[in-house]
Parts: sequence; structure tokens; C-alpha cells
Amino acid sequence: MIGGGQGAFIGAVHRIASRIDNEYQLVCGAFSSDAERSRASGLLLDLPAQRCYASWQQMLEQEQALPAHERVQVICIVTPNHLHFEPAKQAMLAGFDVILDKPMTFSLVEAKELQKVVEETGRLFCLTHTYTGYPMVKEARQLVKSGKLGEIRKVYVEYPQGWLSTFVEGTNNKQATWRTDPAKSGIAGAMGDIGIHAFNLAEYVSGVEVTQLCADINTVVKGRRLDDDGAALLRFSNGASGVLIATQVAAGEENKVKVRVYGENGGLEWQQEDANTLLVKWANKPAEIWRTGGGYTSSFAAHNTRTPSGHPEGYLEAFANLYRNFALHVKARQAGETPSPEVLDYPGIKEGVRGMAFIENVIASGKSTQKWTDFII
Amino acid sequence: MIGGGQGAFIGAVHRIASRIDNEYQLVCGAFSSDAERSRASGLLLDLPAQRCYASWQQMLEQEQALPAHERVQVICIVTPNHLHFEPAKQAMLAGFDVILDKPMTFSLVEAKELQKVVEETGRLFCLTHTYTGYPMVKEARQLVKSGKLGEIRKVYVEYPQGWLSTFVEGTNNKQATWRTDPAKSGIAGAMGDIGIHAFNLAEYVSGVEVTQLCADINTVVKGRRLDDDGAALLRFSNGASGVLIATQVAAGEENKVKVRVYGENGGLEWQQEDANTLLVKWANKPAEIWRTGGGYTSSFAAHNTRTPSGHPEGYLEAFANLYRNFALHVKARQAGETPSPEVLDYPGIKEGVRGMAFIENVIASGKSTQKWTDFII
Amino acid sequence: MIGGGQGAFIGAVHRIASRIDNEYQLVCGAFSSDAERSRASGLLLDLPAQRCYASWQQMLEQEQALPAHERVQVICIVTPNHLHFEPAKQAMLAGFDVILDKPMTFSLVEAKELQKVVEETGRLFCLTHTYTGYPMVKEARQLVKSGKLGEIRKVYVEYPQGWLSTFVEGTNNKQATWRTDPAKSGIAGAMGDIGIHAFNLAEYVSGVEVTQLCADINTVVKGRRLDDDGAALLRFSNGASGVLIATQVAAGEENKVKVRVYGENGGLEWQQEDANTLLVKWANKPAEIWRTGGGYTSSFAAHNTRTPSGHPEGYLEAFANLYRNFALHVKARQAGETPSPEVLDYPGIKEGVRGMAFIENVIASGKSTQKWTDFII
Amino acid sequence: MIGGGQGAFIGAVHRIASRIDNEYQLVCGAFSSDAERSRASGLLLDLPAQRCYASWQQMLEQEQALPAHERVQVICIVTPNHLHFEPAKQAMLAGFDVILDKPMTFSLVEAKELQKVVEETGRLFCLTHTYTGYPMVKEARQLVKSGKLGEIRKVYVEYPQGWLSTFVEGTNNKQATWRTDPAKSGIAGAMGDIGIHAFNLAEYVSGVEVTQLCADINTVVKGRRLDDDGAALLRFSNGASGVLIATQVAAGEENKVKVRVYGENGGLEWQQEDANTLLVKWANKPAEIWRTGGGYTSSFAAHNTRTPSGHPEGYLEAFANLYRNFALHVKARQAGETPSPEVLDYPGIKEGVRGMAFIENVIASGKSTQKWTDFII
Repeated sequence: MIGGGQGAFIGAVHRIASRIDNEYQLVCGAFSSDAERSRASGLLLDLPAQRCYASWQQMLEQEQALPAHERVQVICIVTPNHLHFEPAKQAMLAGFDVILDKPMTFSLVEAKELQKVVEETGRLFCLTHTYTGYPMVKEARQLVKSGKLGEIRKVYVEYPQGWLSTFVEGTNNKQATWRTDPAKSGIAGAMGDIGIHAFNLAEYVSGVEVTQLCADINTVVKGRRLDDDGAALLRFSNGASGVLIATQVAAGEENKVKVRVYGENGGLEWQQEDANTLLVKWANKPAEIWRTGGGYTSSFAAHNTRTPSGHPEGYLEAFANLYRNFALHVKARQAGETPSPEVLDYPGIKEGVRGMAFIENVIASGKSTQKWTDFII
Repeated sequence: MIGGGQGAFIGAVHRIASRIDNEYQLVCGAFSSDAERSRASGLLLDLPAQRCYASWQQMLEQEQALPAHERVQVICIVTPNHLHFEPAKQAMLAGFDVILDKPMTFSLVEAKELQKVVEETGRLFCLTHTYTGYPMVKEARQLVKSGKLGEIRKVYVEYPQGWLSTFVEGTNNKQATWRTDPAKSGIAGAMGDIGIHAFNLAEYVSGVEVTQLCADINTVVKGRRLDDDGAALLRFSNGASGVLIATQVAAGEENKVKVRVYGENGGLEWQQEDANTLLVKWANKPAEIWRTGGGYTSSFAAHNTRTPSGHPEGYLEAFANLYRNFALHVKARQAGETPSPEVLDYPGIKEGVRGMAFIENVIASGKSTQKWTDFII
Repeated sequence: MIGGGQGAFIGAVHRIASRIDNEYQLVCGAFSSDAERSRASGLLLDLPAQRCYASWQQMLEQEQALPAHERVQVICIVTPNHLHFEPAKQAMLAGFDVILDKPMTFSLVEAKELQKVVEETGRLFCLTHTYTGYPMVKEARQLVKSGKLGEIRKVYVEYPQGWLSTFVEGTNNKQATWRTDPAKSGIAGAMGDIGIHAFNLAEYVSGVEVTQLCADINTVVKGRRLDDDGAALLRFSNGASGVLIATQVAAGEENKVKVRVYGENGGLEWQQEDANTLLVKWANKPAEIWRTGGGYTSSFAAHNTRTPSGHPEGYLEAFANLYRNFALHVKARQAGETPSPEVLDYPGIKEGVRGMAFIENVIASGKSTQKWTDFII
Repeated sequence: MIGGGQGAFIGAVHRIASRIDNEYQLVCGAFSSDAERSRASGLLLDLPAQRCYASWQQMLEQEQALPAHERVQVICIVTPNHLHFEPAKQAMLAGFDVILDKPMTFSLVEAKELQKVVEETGRLFCLTHTYTGYPMVKEARQLVKSGKLGEIRKVYVEYPQGWLSTFVEGTNNKQATWRTDPAKSGIAGAMGDIGIHAFNLAEYVSGVEVTQLCADINTVVKGRRLDDDGAALLRFSNGASGVLIATQVAAGEENKVKVRVYGENGGLEWQQEDANTLLVKWANKPAEIWRTGGGYTSSFAAHNTRTPSGHPEGYLEAFANLYRNFALHVKARQAGETPSPEVLDYPGIKEGVRGMAFIENVIASGKSTQKWTDFII
């Protein structure tokens, strides 16, 4: 693991996710750019001192030198955005498979370069867009793919948060501080932190791609250096249209990701607050409540569920689904086997590039006086 | 009553609304442009034959000729949009107070002219934007006004319906037929039918006015002559921003009007499906469930509620609140009294003009390649 | 109308319910046992002075003396429980049809006598068990009757309120005062006020009758003279079992009536708080959300709905459904026609007798040391 | 681990729960009474062959013989009920701390004997009543303890499931087969499987103990050998009363555990389907939505939450909370430290004895013709 030392939020989440299905073992780490801090963090995680590295460069170098059966296999990178690209690239060049937190890189240029690295090294790559790990989100995608809803016409996605309603970066809030710092986050704040999740969710569930957008991007809180709010009108490859909302100043909201997709015959609705439910709506019959663990769900939902219906699985299990599928892919490749489509259904380099393109396109649109702008990669 | 003959939807709703609080008596009507049909409809409503008029012109003329104590006092107009302006204008010129269904007129030009008629005749005027009749919508407005949420920053409003997901105007659907006919509806379909409700709700609750917008207006169903779908990015007078969604092709949706408003300290959420509840969210304490009939609600909510908390009041009662407040205003004026602010809180000519401006502005923006357009009246 | 003078709750509700569908006109009343108060109440309701009677006896006498076309047709009685039986009996003997608020009488003995009066006079009789007037409650009954759920096994019904959590009868609360006074309420408090509704709802929806019960009846608030809380284990005629909960000391609850019924193949759930929804659950497929106004509902639900799906109808419309169906029955009889089953589906004398039997049985069981007691009429 | 071989449900859940917080490592197991099956299961779990034991007796013996630092520390027992007592007893006698699945033993006699073993050996003991591991259940308990709701008056708890609606034990359903077999389950079916959870939850949240009960216990499905349904009226030590419902024949229900507690001033409601929410209701102000991760929650909720508010944690995290607290207790004792009250808040031997007493009392009451029976331990 690179990053995720003491006090980090997402690092701990990654570690839990990796443990849930027993497919990973934490064997080494460069948990901080501060060598001492990295070492302390690693020891707290029961690592032997010699595998708590002073830097990620050191880690890659020394791990490569280990015999294959001792060597780390998958490198997980959970640093702030500006420290995604280089370690990811070097890890793959060093022969490791990589799990990387979103947004994939600091810029679209980096993203495309990383894509080349993936293609050239042939390493496996997973980007942790957590929400697509939820079984009912997978079910939603499968329902759209089945054609039962008919051609998709409308896609609404929203991600309201409230935690940046005040100038918390002025307090001692580590999470807020780097996320609102252009040098660490990149050109986007809310759009890069949560808008990108909404975008990924919209494309994943609807199965169609954004081709044009028209965005309103705002910095609501005085003194903030990046956007903390935005919305975009969307047009999709098949002619569908939609709306994306992402804000971090909806005071009182937690993390209420929600996606709705409507086709000619019906629609679907999923929201994280009720994550084990997929509402399926029909034009001429009662709406249905599809549930995690229900015997009627697709193999994609079933594959990503651990307990019988009625036992809520949550955010950590969704995260763990990414980890598990990636592990199964890694193992299958080692075994020379072809993984099932269910295993392969995790976000990777393509989603990463599109996500970075979203950031650049949505920020550009926000600044533009032109109404519709093409979604350019 | 003008319009609302057999088979009409909204005419029957108006009549129920007028009865609920016993403030009105139906005394005459021109229920259809077809004289025979008007008469038949009136008889079914237990009117004496001589007050079932062949036309609204006849009605105004003959009612004026009646002695004051027999004469109709309030004229309620529930015709399709193209037949709003002229009867409303003539009714006021003839000395009657008027209740008019939304959208107020066929065009903004008519709306402004009607505004002049109201000003010049001094007649009372009510426009039936039903959703602002709900007690918890009134509570929402009062909460914003109280300043407890702080300065308003975000306004999200949506009105998804699904009943026009197919080309129902090609079947024998009376409601769909006139609503999708430019000669009867005006320049807008979904925007004039439901978008205008969403717009009115957003301004009413937030207490701020739209100053700019950027709209995506679509005709999704093949062969349809007016828009059936749209969304708009909004900017408000106080610097707040927002999103308005209105669609009639969200297959499987009924009538799920919903409004969310966020200020510096918290937010609120109301949706028609759970009309007796107002969710109030705070940045640093638990969200609260405010309920119709709760002893803690404002005088505005209390005034518009008939039953103790726990007895759901619905759409018809919301409608009846408009009717009741208008009647109390009419009576107060007759008695030379000043009505309370609670009574005066019903939509009128100003909301009507802004609504028609919304229609013209949103449709224009939909056609424009310019991103933000000023909201012009 | 007998009872329902100024300050009464349920009288006003009855009047609204009677107006909604325009089938009734208030023509006379004895609104209070205080002649002056009765007169004042009637004048406020726009009645002519001569039809504001000093007593219900006077009303029956003088109305009988009027010519048939001027005479009141239906007598509606909304007095406290101890004043139900005599006016209802005399009204029927005087040739009027009767609408009576629940519980039907002061005692089971009176109830059985009233049943005889109904049988002997042949008058029509309606008891206002409001909850069975909700379209989705009717739908629930029809679903059970259809056999789709299979043989019914479990019936859970609950009615939690919180308004009697403190000794409010010690304050100036009119509603609480008579309801907790044995001389006015009868032998039961909560059981007679709301337990009886729960009982009626359980039998109506499940289509099976309680044959045995085992009750725990409590007076929780110190100083109270009647029960304010209870629960009962139930056994039904077909072998099903169930639980009934009714309490007025669930502090913080409003009026959350809820019924759940399970058969071999699935179950249903309805609650007043979301009155326009019926949840239908299946053993092996997704649960369904049936909605008022949905095209797939039975003729019984459709007949009792006024607006298209998505326009919430509430408590007052449920009440109005009782009134409307009774009016249609009265008119059909006058016209010598047979009403449809949908019209006839309103609570009457049979439900009244069973309800009074419930009160006596449940209170007796509460006092008994015997576990199961037969439900005796 | 004892039990939990291939095909077992709860064994896998225990293992996930043990991994989430990285406090445990699976080091050995006797996963099945079939030696070969045990070995195969262990190998699949990456255990070395020599620590996949042929029987739990062998495991205890051989592990005891290992040097302390290699030896297993905590024995987790996840066998069917009839195989709880003996291994738990022997494990403690052999010096190991024990985690045991519920119900604690096969009978109350065994339970009391196990209690003596705990007292005499001084070993630590955890019983996995999962629902009390949910942070919002802990919050509920703390809220009651704080006194803000006032003296508790009513306790309603319910646990409806539908998976035993048909004779599934006649099919090849392993879970159903042993649960409906008196030789493996004990004297109770539904009461021992889920009723005991409901009972534990009721006492845990309300902070008062059941002193009397009156139960209706049924075997609804033909041919079944144990109860699959029941309900009980409850009386509590402080004078409160309540109702417990547990059924496995509510066709269409999943696992909808729900508890409601009302005091003089307000009430609370928690249900597993919305596990991250605690509804707090007040007599005279709006109900509140308390959420996992909310800054206003108690130290008990906060201690048992991993992610910020808005990231749903579910059943596996609730389970993991038991595991983590037990581990922290074990470690604290090793370190000679006193654990915090938050750590000590996990179910143990006392809850186990009361749970077994519940089973015996509720089944006895179900058979009794006496109404109220004392809750005897």
C-alpha cells in the first residue's frame, strides 16, 4: 500500500475492503511521504519493520528484489490525487498489478499516459469507483442491458454532500485541506471528488456514454480555492439526455448518491442510503422492489453478495467487491484461466480515462460561455 | 365555472376543492364551448337549467343582469390554456373575482395584459398553483424566511411524470391531446404543464427569484408537437443556483414533485408523495421530520390544515386551501377587513406573470446556443 | 346532524366528508345538548334558525312533520359514545337512514338492540370505520379475496398513538376528557377509541373473523379512569393467528395505523402514513408497490379514488368514500335499483356489533386470568 | 473455529466479521464432525494441514500442546445448537477464550452450567447476538439510559422472516433441516433461531428485563417438527409492557428485525432494513433522524462505526463490532488494562443464560393454559 498512513480516511477503507474476502494480505507499505510516519503506521498494522518503507520508490525497488513468493503482488495506491500517476506507472513498470483510488490521476494527460502504461506492460489495473461495486448497482446495469426498460431516454444522477458547507479547510481538517488544494487535487474540487463518481455511475448503469455537456460550476464558500458545487446537463451517445448534480455545500446531506435511469418502458432508481434495494418502475404495472440476495437477481448481483437477503451489506462490502473481483482476475491470470464476466466487471483504466476527461470537460464547460460542449478525450 | 364539463379532469378537482371548506356554492356554469354539452354537464351538477349557459360570454352577460344577491361572485376558469385570457379578462371587467387554472395565459403578452386588467379593475385573482397550497410547502417557505437555514445557496426542484412516455395523443386521450397541441397549450408542453409548477414551487419556497437560466428542452416521443421533457440550470437573485427538472417521459413515475433548498446552516426537502412531511436537515444535528398538524409548525401551516397530526391531507386539500384562502380574502374585502398574512398567502397575478415568463424564457433558452440567458419579463 | 357543535373534532370531519362528493347537503342539526350552543353552531354553518334544533328529539319530531321533499333524509350522529344508541334508534324508527360514528354504541347489549332496529325498520345504516374507506385498504381486501396470497396465516394490526401519554384529561382537553370518562366512553378507553378500528381493519382486510383472543389491557397514565394501552393475541376462524396492538401512550406517535396480512404465498402491508400505497410481497419474486390510481387496481379501489395516480388522497377522502357509497346506496334504493358491490362495500350494522363485541371481549380478556377466551357476541 | 465448514452460512459470516478489523487471524479449525470434510474446509481457508483438525476434541488437545505464542487464543464455535455446550465448556477449561454463536446452548440447564464454567475458569466469553452490534442499536440503548425518554413504558420488538413458509426442510436445504430438527435445535424452532434475537434486542435497548410473559406459539407449516411462528405479550421489571413477534412464515419478508421503545417523553425506533438510522420521536417536537457517524451520537455508537456518516455499514460490520470489542477485551486483559465501557458492551454469558431462559419460558408459556407465567431462570 502506498499512502493511507495514520489519520487517512480512505486508506483504512481500502484495508478493510481488502480483508473482507480474505483474498489479500497486507505485506508492505509506504504509508506516508514522511519516512518515520510511514514506519509508525506500518508497525501499527503489524507489518515487520523492514517492509515499512520510507518512500514508495524504495518500496518498489526493494520489493522487486525479493524472491517472487515473498514479493508483494498488488500495489494499492491511496495517496492524494497528485501522487497517483507516478507510483501507479512505476509500479506497473516494476511488474506489479495496481489498485488505484479515484480520480485516477492529476490530469487527463497523465490519465492517457497511464493508459499507455497499462497497455504496454499488460498489468492488471483497478480503479476504486466504489459505487459500481454495490450489487444493486450491478443489477441496475444488467437490467438496462437486458433491454427490458427499452431504449434509454433519461439519466439523472446526483451526489449531494454537506460537509464542505463551511470553510473547514481553515480548520485542521486534513480531508478538506488537500481536497480543496489545487496543487493536490487538480483543477477540480467537488467535481473531482464526487462529481466523478456520479459520472461513472451514470455511464455504468445506463450503458451509454456522455457525448456533450453544459455545466454550471460554482465555488460557493468564500475563500475556497476549488469548486464545491456544480451541475451539468448531459447528452448521451444514444440520444438520451440527463442531469448530473454534485455538491458539497448541501448542508445537512451526508453522501446521498442516487441514480435514476428511464427507458421507453420503465425506469430504475438506486440510492446509497438504501443500498440493498433497486426500485424498478414500469409504465403499466406496479413498481418492484428488487433486493440484494433476492433469488431473482442476476448472476452479477449474486456474485457480489455474501449474505442472504435481509442482511444489509454496505459501503465496505461494495468496496470489497472491487477488491475481490480484482483478486479473482489476478489469480485467474496466474492460473491461465479466463475469468467470468462477473469477475471482470470492475472499473479499470478505461473508466479512469473517461473520469479524468469528465473532470477536464466539466470544468471547461463551467468556464465556457458556449452552451453545449463536446465531451473530448 | 367556465370549462370543466363531463370528462374533464381538472374541473372536477376544482369543484371538490371549492366544496371542502364550504365557502363556495356552484351557482352557474359554461362548462363547454358546445352549448348542449354545457347544459348537460350543468344539469348533472344539479344546476337549474337557466344557469347552465351556452357560452361563457352569455354567462357573464346574464349573470351581470341578475340582482346582486343572486349573482355569481367568483368565476372559476378551468379551460385549456388558449381559453384562459379572454374569459378571465372579461370576467374581471364584468366585476367578478376570478380563480384561474395554470398556466395563466397562452402567452406572456396576454399575461401582462391580464395583470393590467387586475390592476385596473381591482378584482381579486387566484391562480391555482396547487403545490403551494400544501401546509408543509408553506412551512418550508416560512422556515426559509425565518433565516434559520441561513442564506439560501441551492435550490433543486423536480417534477417527473411518465404518462406521456408513449404517443398517447394518438389514442383517444383527451388530456394528452390538448396538452400536446400548440394551438391549445401554447409554445410549451411539459414546461407549461408541469415545469411551471416546479418553477413556482422553487421560487415560493426559496423566497428568491430566478434571474438567469440555461435550459435543455426535448421532445422525446416521436411525432409529438411540443416538448415533453426538459431541465434547466438556474441562477437566483441572491446568488444561489439550482436545477429544475420536469419531464413527462420518465416511464413509471406518477407525479413526484419534489423540492430541496439548502442554506448555509441546513436544508429542507418536501415531496408530494409524502406531502404531510417536511424534512429539515441541519449541518450539525439530526435531521428533523416536521409533520402537518405538529404543534411546532408555523401559523401558515396550521391555518391550512384541517385535522390533527397523523391524518393525512392530500392533493385535494392542498387545492382546497387555495380556494379557502381566496374566499376568505373575498369575504374580508366585502366586510372591509384586512385579511391575515396567512389568508393572503395564495398564488395570484404576480406568480402568473412570472410563470408565463418562465415558459417563454425556458423555451427560448432551450432553442438558444447561448449558455446563460437572462430571465426576462 | 346530531352532535358536532363548535369545538368538536369529528363532527367537522363528517361535514367535510359529506361535501367532498356533493352527495349531501346539511339541512338541519341538533349540534349540542345545549340548545343555545346548538343554535349558534347551526347558524355558523349557514343553516336557517328554524332548523337548528334544541335537541335531537325535537329535530326528529319536527323534521318528520315536514313535507317529504323538504325533510332531512339521512341523519348523521357524531356524539360521544353514550349518546349513540338512542338517537340512532329513534332516527331509524322515525324513518331516516343513519350514519353513525364508531364505536356503534355504549355497550354490546345496545349494539344488538340496534341491530334489531335496523332489521325491523329496514333503514340503511353506515358506521364510520374510516380506514376501510381508503382505496388501498379495499385493494388489500380484494387481493386477499382473490386467493393470490393463498390461505391467510398471519394478521398483524397496530394503532399506536401518543397523545394520551400524559394526563391531558386534567387539562382542558375536550377530546381527552370524554374519551377517558367511563360514563361517556363506556367500559373501554383506547380499545374503544382506536383498538376497535384496528380490529375492524384486521377482519376487513383478512376476510376472516376473530374467534379467540388473549389480551393485555393497561392503564399506563396515573389517574386515568380507562385503559390507554393494550395488545391482544388473536386466533381467527380459518386457523390463522395474529396480534393486535393499540396504544395511546406511545409518546411521539401520531396515528400510525398499520395492517399486515400473510398467506401461504405472500403478504401485504398498508399503513395510513403512506395511505396511497399497498405493499405486496411475494415469496419468490420482488415485492410490489401498488398505488392508488394505478391502472392495475381492482374496481373497488378505482371506485373509491377521485384523481389520477400520484395525487395523494388522504383521510378526508377515505371518510368521504363512506359517505359517498352510503349516498349511492340510499339513492339506488330510492330508484329501486341494486347497487354495485363496490357501493355496498361500506361498514354497517354487522361491523358495529362485532366492534362492540370486540370491546367487551378484549376488556374481559384483559381482566381474565384465563389465557384464551372465546370471542362471544 | 469449531464448525463452519463448506456450505455453512454463519461460519463464513463469523470469519468475515473476524477479519474486518484485523484483530484476528484464523489459525486452526475443526470445521466439521467429518474429519475429511474438516480438512478440506480448512485447506480452502489456507490453513496448514496440521491445523485442520479431525475433531474439536483433537483441536483443543493439540493446540494446548503448542507453545503459547503459536497456540490459538480464542475459540469460535459456530456449530448447530446441540454442539455448543460441550466444546465451549472444554475450550474454556482448556484455557481458551470463547466466541459462541446463539442460542448459547441446547437447554437452560446447559446454559447455567456454562455460566459456572465461565465464572470458575475466568475465561472471557462472547455470544454473537449480532443486532446489538449495530451502532444505532447501541445508540438506542444509550438514549434510554440517558433518561431523556423518561421511564420506559412500552417495548415492541418483531422479527418477521418468510423463508420457512413452505416445507423447505423436505428439500435439500441444510439451514432449514437442522433448524427444524429438535435433536439439533432444541425445544424451539423460530423462537430459538430468531425469537431469541428479538428478546435480546428488547432487553438490551430498553434496559429492563422481562419478568412475565404470555405466548402464542405455532407450527404453521404442516409436517414441521418445531415452532415456526409465535408472539408473546411481555411484562418488564419496571412495570413496562410489550409485545414480541417472531415468525418464519411471513411469506415475502426477509429479515426485518425492528424494535420500538416508548417512554414518558418520547420513543425510538430502529429496524435492520435501515440500520444506520435511529428514529427518535418526541411528544412535543419533531421526530429526529439520528444517523451512524453523526457527530452528535454517543461514544458507544462512535466506537462501533468505521466510516463517516453516509457510508452505510451493515450486518457484517455489526457482527465485526462484537468480534472487535471482544478482541480489545482480550488484549486489554493480557495487557493488564481495564477496557472502556464501550469495549465491554458486547453480549456475554448473562445474555446467554437469559436467552436460553427465554426459549424455555416462551415455549412453556405457549403450551400453558395459564395466561401470565413468570420468567424463570
